Amino acid sequence: MHEKLDELRARLRDVTDLEMAGAVLGWDQQTYMPRGGAVARGRQMATLARIRHEKFTDPALGHLLDALAPYADTLGADSDDAALIRVTQRDYDRALRIPPTLLVAFYEHSASMYEAWVDARPTGDFRPLTDGFARTVDFSRQFAACAPSYDHIADPLIDAADYGMRAVDIQRIFGELRARLVPLVERVTAHERPDTRFLGRDYPAATQLALALQLGTQFGYDTQRGRQDLTHHPFATRFSNGDVRITTRVNPHDPTDALFSTLHECGHAMYEQGVAAHYDGTLLASGVSAGVHESQSRLWENLVGRSRAFCAYAFPQIQAAFPQQLAGVTAEQWYRAVNDVSRSLIRTDADELTYNLHVIIRFDLELALLDGSLAPRDLPDAWRARYQRDLGVASPDDKDGVLQDVHWYAGVVGGSFQGYTLGNILSAQFYNAAVQTHPQITTEVAHGEFGTLHGWLRENVYQHGRKYTPTELIARASGQPMTIEPYIAYLEAKYGELYPA
Amino acid sequence: MHEKLDELRARLRDVTDLEMAGAVLGWDQQTYMPRGGAVARGRQMATLARIRHEKFTDPALGHLLDALAPYADTLGADSDDAALIRVTQRDYDRALRIPPTLLVAFYEHSASMYEAWVDARPTGDFRPLTDGFARTVDFSRQFAACAPSYDHIADPLIDAADYGMRAVDIQRIFGELRARLVPLVERVTAHERPDTRFLGRDYPAATQLALALQLGTQFGYDTQRGRQDLTHHPFATRFSNGDVRITTRVNPHDPTDALFSTLHECGHAMYEQGVAAHYDGTLLASGVSAGVHESQSRLWENLVGRSRAFCAYAFPQIQAAFPQQLAGVTAEQWYRAVNDVSRSLIRTDADELTYNLHVIIRFDLELALLDGSLAPRDLPDAWRARYQRDLGVASPDDKDGVLQDVHWYAGVVGGSFQGYTLGNILSAQFYNAAVQTHPQITTEVAHGEFGTLHGWLRENVYQHGRKYTPTELIARASGQPMTIEPYIAYLEAKYGELYPA
Repeated sequence: MHEKLDELRARLRDVTDLEMAGAVLGWDQQTYMPRGGAVARGRQMATLARIRHEKFTDPALGHLLDALAPYADTLGADSDDAALIRVTQRDYDRALRIPPTLLVAFYEHSASMYEAWVDARPTGDFRPLTDGFARTVDFSRQFAACAPSYDHIADPLIDAADYGMRAVDIQRIFGELRARLVPLVERVTAHERPDTRFLGRDYPAATQLALALQLGTQFGYDTQRGRQDLTHHPFATRFSNGDVRITTRVNPHDPTDALFSTLHECGHAMYEQGVAAHYDGTLLASGVSAGVHESQSRLWENLVGRSRAFCAYAFPQIQAAFPQQLAGVTAEQWYRAVNDVSRSLIRTDADELTYNLHVIIRFDLELALLDGSLAPRDLPDAWRARYQRDLGVASPDDKDGVLQDVHWYAGVVGGSFQGYTLGNILSAQFYNAAVQTHPQITTEVAHGEFGTLHGWLRENVYQHGRKYTPTELIARASGQPMTIEPYIAYLEAKYGELYPA
Repeated sequence: MHEKLDELRARLRDVTDLEMAGAVLGWDQQTYMPRGGAVARGRQMATLARIRHEKFTDPALGHLLDALAPYADTLGADSDDAALIRVTQRDYDRALRIPPTLLVAFYEHSASMYEAWVDARPTGDFRPLTDGFARTVDFSRQFAACAPSYDHIADPLIDAADYGMRAVDIQRIFGELRARLVPLVERVTAHERPDTRFLGRDYPAATQLALALQLGTQFGYDTQRGRQDLTHHPFATRFSNGDVRITTRVNPHDPTDALFSTLHECGHAMYEQGVAAHYDGTLLASGVSAGVHESQSRLWENLVGRSRAFCAYAFPQIQAAFPQQLAGVTAEQWYRAVNDVSRSLIRTDADELTYNLHVIIRFDLELALLDGSLAPRDLPDAWRARYQRDLGVASPDDKDGVLQDVHWYAGVVGGSFQGYTLGNILSAQFYNAAVQTHPQITTEVAHGEFGTLHGWLRENVYQHGRKYTPTELIARASGQPMTIEPYIAYLEAKYGELYPA
């Protein structure tokens, strides 16, 4: 059995090495690649992905898993070996169901769709993309249809990102959340807004980058095993346990953009850096789901980064970096400015409170596109109508409307957005659990000490990688199934105090 | 046949995509990778190389080549298809002879040897590396012994880098060159040296990088299809026809380091950018040999970059970049300073004239290590003795001695150095041929016009990639076989004028 397990590990090492190599090529594409490299790079990444798929769906790997299944059954629930076999089997079954021809056709479509989106976005007109987008929806349905069974056609796509969740579960959670959020947003936006004019001054890019990374490393992001680069869209990416990078976008007239996107990406990266090092080279070596991953970025960005305690601690550093721009501003003014709430058009610029409404709109539209109740050509109108209804604003064209997010133009439609709001919900649930165990965390944060919180997250979330299912992990770490109550309580307390009734 | 040719191309596309992906990982390793990424990166690169080897040595590829051989015979000598089949067959035969187990064992050895060298180099002591280095020599012999036959054990390793050359050929060429160089070096170094003190001032790194790239792009290096980054050791690397990058090292107290290493790497990169774009994804898409590649870097670095005509043209730009540091310096003083000749310890710092003596020492030591006449433990003494004899200098320890070059500690011993001097020889041969066809080149260079020269090189060298053998290419481009005469004539004319008898 040990020989078979070693062979499984050797095969998975190849699979993950190919995947990580693809990630390096993707990072380079976003950071440093010259324009002339685009066409070949797209092909090279597709080749790596195809060879990874070939290696992973090799029948010999299936035979190994068959041979190892009885062994896995003899191991305890807490066994790493059993988890390795279980997770590999699950991914293997899923991969085997996808015909390689579908995968290759989709890569080609996806690359040209992305190019078309890059061209279309500045024009603000979705219409030239309609046919391509309809094919994306069709591809998405084909991918979903590879699953052995489902209730809603979106379920297999949701399950791929947030294992164990179905459309109906998320509709229920989002429904409850929306019912609580809408009146809260109403109440808060009826208030006078804080003064945010000092955020609009000139903030040099290099100082922004350095300050953001400085605070991220204080949280615990390890730059010996990572680095920061500048990109248009911020992201975190893993090449190994020893190399987890973040990228930062900079807006020279809004320092909160680089700052909070960096704290956010540091949260993702600390999760990946904290996965047990001995999982490297296996499928256990990554975050467990889109939702849990996002909970880690949101926890550090919002529950810590946008808290009054952290603002009081960090503001002297921020002010020292920008002494002219922030002359006369107090930590309390900073705290209020970074918690300004407004109904706006752009998801990634949205405040903590309205953000979830942006996500829920996208989630609902994905379901409608996939089940056929919404035709691709009607998407821009449906988008505008939902924004008008839920947020009271509507984009004059599609640039800040349906063309704003890359997701639908670089991947499938379905499963792409729910993780953001699941992450917000879970961020409060995990933070609460940490504070219940270590009540000193809140005072520590005020003193710039993040070790206890980071340690609890490493212990209860990070280290496990994909060993447990998201459902198991949430229950183990927080003592209960996913619940919106801590999140709602957090929002009501915070915004109730900031914007009293 | 067209179907078989298409299948061959598809298979080669995978092979080259894997190779280019490996190159991206290698570039990142040298430029931006954090320390923590080293171990996994080594393994990822080894995995890509192994899978590339598996794909390339797939028997199905051999069958395709067998089936295509009769078709290739029906094509003219100038046919791209015939060249593709011929070059692929040659590489296939070579790859098939290397046992994968040998390759894997060597990658592992090589990675740890490199780490050991990085640690040992600052201590200046070769002795801790002796056993590892002896294994490197043994691996090198094993690789050589995979060849079906050879006269000298170094021949297969030399042939891999400079196809068609044997140890005995190079010994003859190097012997002739040495006989002409040694008296020239004697004569020149008897002269008083030019004033180079102005080169020792403070030259800010960012300005050095920008100036070097500015001049490289004037030569014709295309930054839409490339870019420049900072590394400890400069290199050029190809990811596709549309993405050929250079790196630059900067010495804040010697601007010639960044400048000439950049012109050098731009020469390599312009060669790769000039290979016919439709060769991308095949084995024809690269420079044809180490020697011909180096001829292109040396041509732009030395025959152009260190010429009086180019110095006269470029010096105003250089002075404008460093107005304080170069105040009162003339173009002629700059020309003389960048052609200062001295007997020194470090190959990469050596002037144009003594450089070849450094290379010939290494070449001779490689032969002796491989044929067993020199034991690895005796290498440092042999190195010092040869430096004393040939250059009249000896390093107090091994740091600036046998530990100075990475080659023997990151790859095999054998075939690693001869290309540098073959390149010097060929640089003059190609330049002469270009000037014979287009005599206006010399006056154009004085006016900063490089298009005619660049065009001749693209036409006669670059575009062909690996289509012709090095021997064929040299004969086609220059009208004669490789000869040291143009190079010697160039050196004697230039240094005879600079340092008259």
